[in-house]
Amino acid sequence: MSTLYVVKIGGNIIDDEKKLLSFLKDFALIKGPKILIHGGGKLATKLAEQMNIPQQMIDGRRITDAETLKIVTMVYAGYINKNIVAQLQANNCNAIGLCGADGNIILAHKRKVTNSPSGAGGIDYGFAGDVDAINTTFLKSILDQQVSVVMAPITHDQKGQLLNTNADTIAQEVATALSALFDVQLIYSFEKSGVLLDANDDSTVIPSINPTNYTQLKTEQKIFAGMIPKLDNAFAALSKGVKKVIIGKAEQLGELIAGKAGTSIVHE
Amino acid sequence: MSTLYVVKIGGNIIDDEKKLLSFLKDFALIKGPKILIHGGGKLATKLAEQMNIPQQMIDGRRITDAETLKIVTMVYAGYINKNIVAQLQANNCNAIGLCGADGNIILAHKRKVTNSPSGAGGIDYGFAGDVDAINTTFLKSILDQQVSVVMAPITHDQKGQLLNTNADTIAQEVATALSALFDVQLIYSFEKSGVLLDANDDSTVIPSINPTNYTQLKTEQKIFAGMIPKLDNAFAALSKGVKKVIIGKAEQLGELIAGKAGTSIVHE
Repeated sequence: MSTLYVVKIGGNIIDDEKKLLSFLKDFALIKGPKILIHGGGKLATKLAEQMNIPQQMIDGRRITDAETLKIVTMVYAGYINKNIVAQLQANNCNAIGLCGADGNIILAHKRKVTNSPSGAGGIDYGFAGDVDAINTTFLKSILDQQVSVVMAPITHDQKGQLLNTNADTIAQEVATALSALFDVQLIYSFEKSGVLLDANDDSTVIPSINPTNYTQLKTEQKIFAGMIPKLDNAFAALSKGVKKVIIGKAEQLGELIAGKAGTSIVHE
Repeated sequence: MSTLYVVKIGGNIIDDEKKLLSFLKDFALIKGPKILIHGGGKLATKLAEQMNIPQQMIDGRRITDAETLKIVTMVYAGYINKNIVAQLQANNCNAIGLCGADGNIILAHKRKVTNSPSGAGGIDYGFAGDVDAINTTFLKSILDQQVSVVMAPITHDQKGQLLNTNADTIAQEVATALSALFDVQLIYSFEKSGVLLDANDDSTVIPSINPTNYTQLKTEQKIFAGMIPKLDNAFAALSKGVKKVIIGKAEQLGELIAGKAGTSIVHE
């Protein structure tokens, strides 16, 4: 099977035009089939402010009311997605920008109202989507034409409703589903150089984490609490067929892929 | 060759949610390969107002400055395009929403500053694109998978610049280019029942126009001046290989395709 790179790009790069252009140049240089998954950075929040639409966040997650869904659809699937595609084209990387409704690529359902831990009532995330299925056949047919896929984190329920979906989750679901057809390497690129022993010191990258040293690192409380859900997700992806998960700095995409930077999360 | 329907949907339908849903139901029922090309109706203007971005129109054409390009990219390629795709999916019509940058489908160049007829200086349309080439291979590969294509009127110059392009023109260019691979029927759906003898009377539809009676109708000044550029474009499309052009009411899409409504523009 050929290697497929599924790359999630963090919001801090989206917000920085110069860094984004540099990142896209590096992405364009990756040989073989590749998928780029992006979120929206601060642009959606800025547009909401300009339009005087108040934004509600709970635990760092945006509550997607109808007006907010309109904004994220415009910003993520429109402005950001199409500008990324145009830049990749300028770098001789033929690409296509899609959301989950296109080609029925990501089927999802509206998140149910969840009970708060205190039991004091539910949290309604609004038009937030949880993923049900990935249409790997259609994705493969595009990748097989040497066309890269750029995914905006908008899904649909096949009943006409678009849904806002976490981009990290989409990256994991797409990577997992396609591991039946490709040797998938899943790369989470963000503002840090990798998983760090000291969250404030970018030189303390842990080069490799496997289930054994992960247990030890957690026991010794050497991993920043905020990284643990990401790492749990990474191990979940590995257990479902993804070959390797790499976490590292977006500015080092080439080195991350070459195994010369970042943290690799691997089986034993 | 199989028949391909290229349908341009007018702004008045985009602006009317109920009419749009009904139109999309009809579009979903068309058998075989099909492409839907949409503009943006009044939504882009409304968003510009909300964002306090002044809009400049010259001769009914929007001047696309940088902020306006951002707006039309968000509204056309984001909000409208993805909502149309989601509705088609709900009607069991697998569809994919694209702009001209995706898959390098529509290559264009930024319109040069044109001299005004009086010679008193040029009109700078800003980021407006004039079409250079259509990537028919990629379009066909999608249509061959029984996936319909929904096109937003945004193109690119392959140097990283998105461009705003007239949706009527895109419909004509796409139809013409694909007539090498399909028997193309090009349908312009709008608010009137067809080409009318009396612009205020929807019952005066001219059922068929060919080059001979077109000359006569023009000589007798029986055709509303505003229709003449549309008809000239229709005849240009026919001369470049399109089999039939149909002009008629969006609410009658099924009848237009069945030849039971609207005006057919045909060779002799």
